[in-house]
Amino acid sequence: MTPQAPTPAYRRLSVEERRSQLLDAALSLFAHRAPEEVSLDDVAEAAGVSRPLVYRYFPGGKQQLYEAALRSAADELRHCFDEPHEGPLLLRLSRALDRYLAFVDQHGTGFSALLQGGSVVETSRTTAIVDGVRRAAAEHILSHLGVAGPGPRLRMTIRMWITAVEAASLIWLDEDKQPPADELRDWLVEQFVAVLEVTARRDPQTEALVRELAADL
Amino acid sequence: MTPQAPTPAYRRLSVEERRSQLLDAALSLFAHRAPEEVSLDDVAEAAGVSRPLVYRYFPGGKQQLYEAALRSAADELRHCFDEPHEGPLLLRLSRALDRYLAFVDQHGTGFSALLQGGSVVETSRTTAIVDGVRRAAAEHILSHLGVAGPGPRLRMTIRMWITAVEAASLIWLDEDKQPPADELRDWLVEQFVAVLEVTARRDPQTEALVRELAADL
Repeated sequence: MTPQAPTPAYRRLSVEERRSQLLDAALSLFAHRAPEEVSLDDVAEAAGVSRPLVYRYFPGGKQQLYEAALRSAADELRHCFDEPHEGPLLLRLSRALDRYLAFVDQHGTGFSALLQGGSVVETSRTTAIVDGVRRAAAEHILSHLGVAGPGPRLRMTIRMWITAVEAASLIWLDEDKQPPADELRDWLVEQFVAVLEVTARRDPQTEALVRELAADL
Repeated sequence: MTPQAPTPAYRRLSVEERRSQLLDAALSLFAHRAPEEVSLDDVAEAAGVSRPLVYRYFPGGKQQLYEAALRSAADELRHCFDEPHEGPLLLRLSRALDRYLAFVDQHGTGFSALLQGGSVVETSRTTAIVDGVRRAAAEHILSHLGVAGPGPRLRMTIRMWITAVEAASLIWLDEDKQPPADELRDWLVEQFVAVLEVTARRDPQTEALVRELAADL
């Protein structure tokens, strides 16, 4: 209605906008500090709002804020897996890994603290959020591979690889993001093929899949 | 001194023996129930002693008992890695995996709860105990491989494989211990070789190692 947009300080945010502003502030703090080292005061300061306002949105305090931030990060992480079902399979996997590694790069410490556990604010609910992302990753991969009824050996292989990717991301953050993300991505894709090939020796379903992957290149 | 050993009920245990008896009782309970579902009462009952006695040994209560049990399990787990430095390398790895899988088989739920986190009694201290075992596993593997100064790519590969083995154990417990332990062990050893081969494509140190492994069979 006004000819110029009001400056952020004066603009009245909707409840959803405010909530999302506070979560963004919290996530950026979690990116550099472990969750237990971030107070509601810090979030209020980072968002440029009063402490009572933060409490109004997250009356459960730190734990509620952390869980909400975690859910928001988990949603963002799931978006990394959104990849059209077209083109060579390993290229799709590479693109999803690029997005995933960009997420890890951006969220740094918060990502580590979350996955490594041992945070004082970790609970079975936060663990369930993280496990939900892992399951979503496995389902995305199986859907791209076109496997409707994955047998136990194929499922186990995919889940092991996902865990190995997580471990790689944590080590990568520890080692000052070496090797470069592009090399890490290619390495992880090659490991994906290699572990499927091992499983293929004892599982006809995986064997058929490996043949498809080879023909698909 | 007496011609017959006294029955356990009458024998006075030393402090160390008593402590170890209580830890064994606790570990056997953790094998079937998540840590937060095991009370000091349960431990007293399982060990056939009074509740005050359990408290005398673990005045810090549940958390202290859990940590002590965890340390004791971690020590047992480290023993799985004790393997003479002789004979074919992959055979040594197979034997260590056999002992590890026997441990997983025996400790079941307690092992899962421990590794999966999300337990209400999990703290940064318990996480450090588990990480210590992971580090010990990596050091054992590197020492058997005869690598004194492992580069980042080789270290990352070994750590990723260890995480994948952990994931496999948890899935294995979830899936009623299928495939059989022998098959799982061989599968994990083959994956070890396969991921090293992938790393060898971009790392001369790992390449030399893979050549050694092939010559060693």
